[in-house]
Amino acid sequence: MTTITGAAQTIAGEYVRAWTSGDAEKALSLVADDVVCDAPSGRIEGIDGYRRFLAPFVGTLVKGEVLDVLGHDTRAVTVYSVDLPFVQNLHGAEYLTVTDGKISHVISVFDMSPMLKARAAQS
Amino acid sequence: MTTITGAAQTIAGEYVRAWTSGDAEKALSLVADDVVCDAPSGRIEGIDGYRRFLAPFVGTLVKGEVLDVLGHDTRAVTVYSVDLPFVQNLHGAEYLTVTDGKISHVISVFDMSPMLKARAAQS
Repeated sequence: MTTITGAAQTIAGEYVRAWTSGDAEKALSLVADDVVCDAPSGRIEGIDGYRRFLAPFVGTLVKGEVLDVLGHDTRAVTVYSVDLPFVQNLHGAEYLTVTDGKISHVISVFDMSPMLKARAAQS
Repeated sequence: MTTITGAAQTIAGEYVRAWTSGDAEKALSLVADDVVCDAPSGRIEGIDGYRRFLAPFVGTLVKGEVLDVLGHDTRAVTVYSVDLPFVQNLHGAEYLTVTDGKISHVISVFDMSPMLKARAAQS
């Protein structure tokens, strides 16, 4: 059994451990200025938009846990579980492409329906 | 740059290529009888329940595409994109544990909100 820890896997690990522990800015320091992210809510382009996506989410975290980080030198997937005020054990995954040492593309996958239900209950 | 193709990664690749191309039974042949799956809709235990989860979803596929399969000998993640009658380019990920050559645990991550919206529109 051989496990190779490549550059993307290493950066993805630092990134996901940062934001799941509440440090959005440390996570964002690993993201490229021209990042493109495909999220359930739509496409986000650029680090400013990505900060507006990530930081409020991290701000609501009750608990974050990294379940795994798999990948190689150019691509990696993080698998995580989070508790939010209105949902527990919400699983998510991020498929990350790393270019020149920074995260350049993200496919962010999680179930938005608990957020939509909470928003509907508030309105 | 070194990429290791481990047993779990190989089985995960066969599994996701099968179901995304419409062959749920071929995919299910790679899943353990006592599989446990944590899905957005809740926990599923056993192959019969997993078939009731996977087969109807595969039956509604308009298009399925495997974006990547990352992993090693015991764990792997599939990243996919599907078109369904009511949503296009829905991304998902499956975090798979392989034991004795079969998929024994699945964390299935995707956004359920398009399905819930479609269901609400029908009712």
